[in-house]
Amino acid sequence: MKDGAIGVDIGGTKVAVGFVNPNGEVVSKRQFSTDVAKGPEAITHQIADEVKQLIREGNYQPKGVGVGMAGQIDPHTGLVHFAPNLNWVEFPFGQKLSKELDLPVKVTNDVRAAALGEWRFGSGKGHKDLVCLFVGTGIGGGVVVDGKMVEGPTNCAGELGHIVIELKGPQCHCGNYGCLEALAGGWAIGRIGQELAKNYRQEASKIIECAGGNPADITAKHISMAANEGDPAAVRIFDDVVEALIAGVISVVNGLNPSCVILGGGVIEAHKDLIHRIEVGVRARALKTATKALSIVGASLKNDAGIVGAASFMLERG
Amino acid sequence: MKDGAIGVDIGGTKVAVGFVNPNGEVVSKRQFSTDVAKGPEAITHQIADEVKQLIREGNYQPKGVGVGMAGQIDPHTGLVHFAPNLNWVEFPFGQKLSKELDLPVKVTNDVRAAALGEWRFGSGKGHKDLVCLFVGTGIGGGVVVDGKMVEGPTNCAGELGHIVIELKGPQCHCGNYGCLEALAGGWAIGRIGQELAKNYRQEASKIIECAGGNPADITAKHISMAANEGDPAAVRIFDDVVEALIAGVISVVNGLNPSCVILGGGVIEAHKDLIHRIEVGVRARALKTATKALSIVGASLKNDAGIVGAASFMLERG
Repeated sequence: MKDGAIGVDIGGTKVAVGFVNPNGEVVSKRQFSTDVAKGPEAITHQIADEVKQLIREGNYQPKGVGVGMAGQIDPHTGLVHFAPNLNWVEFPFGQKLSKELDLPVKVTNDVRAAALGEWRFGSGKGHKDLVCLFVGTGIGGGVVVDGKMVEGPTNCAGELGHIVIELKGPQCHCGNYGCLEALAGGWAIGRIGQELAKNYRQEASKIIECAGGNPADITAKHISMAANEGDPAAVRIFDDVVEALIAGVISVVNGLNPSCVILGGGVIEAHKDLIHRIEVGVRARALKTATKALSIVGASLKNDAGIVGAASFMLERG
Repeated sequence: MKDGAIGVDIGGTKVAVGFVNPNGEVVSKRQFSTDVAKGPEAITHQIADEVKQLIREGNYQPKGVGVGMAGQIDPHTGLVHFAPNLNWVEFPFGQKLSKELDLPVKVTNDVRAAALGEWRFGSGKGHKDLVCLFVGTGIGGGVVVDGKMVEGPTNCAGELGHIVIELKGPQCHCGNYGCLEALAGGWAIGRIGQELAKNYRQEASKIIECAGGNPADITAKHISMAANEGDPAAVRIFDDVVEALIAGVISVVNGLNPSCVILGGGVIEAHKDLIHRIEVGVRARALKTATKALSIVGASLKNDAGIVGAASFMLERG
């Protein structure tokens, strides 16, 4: 199969590689574990081998390879300044992988890649002004303005988890206070549940039960489970999460006037009604002119977002 | 003088028109009052007369006329959907003025125009990714991404006064709660001072004195006066304003990664140290990668920003 590109989605413990055709469909894929301790050279070699095998099996002729991974990356050179999950520092990953594969390689941030995938082949298709907000353990995003993904001079545009929505709010992992992520990111939701369990054991009994009995094990997932079963304490926690996400989306909508906001990530997907509730709040409280042309939708690529997004990055930049 | 354009800055009670050369300099200008009660046709005619006289006196040959005014405007057709200060509704202003002058006319929002002026000819010269934040009675802004002013599908991008920085914060004129404008806009500062004077007359005595003795007359200007004289109550009010502005700028910087943030408007200009204090807070608390290439500066066009910005809009779009 000609055209199309390979997408590589590098996580902290596993890597997925897939061949993506020009319609953004994953034609075939492979998944494998990585051992961070082996170091960047060995992991690069392992990824190259898996990509080669994928290409051989499908007899593909990809235009190149796109890679999405967490960290600070120079999208022009493929130099990984810092990849926290892998512990890579100033590693010329793009260059090395390209040499091993004898194919062009483009590397970008995983959230940016996922946003690109949603824009080109997912829920954002056809929009020129769009914002993706992925609410997982952390919160990240991607911003498209007038038909271009915003990168910024130091390539970190789209850090929407770190817009401030509560002056004097709780401290965030980034060091600042009141970030959207510190109120609605998975890690923050887990922490809120743990604190509730510590101080009001009775009230949090259902949540503790979902976590297997130990308050220290509570994560956002357990609180979602309890909320979906109607537990009042868990429902209240998510009421606050919804308020925080409404505020965050309003900031983005009033500030940038996009025609589409895409909501994705584990926290969103764990609750059937979250997107609807956020939309109701945003339409009621954002500027009327800013919501006139706005649609608020769920992400559609789900598990394949990383592969599709990374391949899209290659197809655009290759 | 050939080249250049006429800039028209329409306020609620007065209008300024000027000839702006291609370097963004106001070569000559005229100012006059308008009577809103006369209605849109008469005011259009009056503006046309003043522009004609300006052109005649300087023997200019402008490329066209740019207009900046508060309100919702279609920048492509010059149709004024709604201009609150003038009470115009669905008035085809651009078309009418163009016909009277026999020159191309481009109309845009006044804040957008001022941001464009700062970008092209003021403090933002040379930047490709820039945010202007004007803190006056209200708060407005302009966002430039990758060398283009962001407009959005309904042309209201840049409403940075209505990003949310305090969940459950005070109500804003827009109806929502906790907007940046509701904590740091001139009207909000005045309201905070009035409430202080009502509840703690002794503590607010200096502010009341600056307002001429009547607590109900207190505006942001009086609180600025008192703060600049070291009055503790007024200083405390501005400490909170600084915190709010730091949060707002952090949101913009983390979300969009601009290389330049321009701060302007009456509230900023009334305090010598405000920009410095905001910069210190932003550099301490925004993401390190997002501030690496960032400069935070004051607006430089001051009183002529409206004329220069409106003319720039013509020069770009004409």
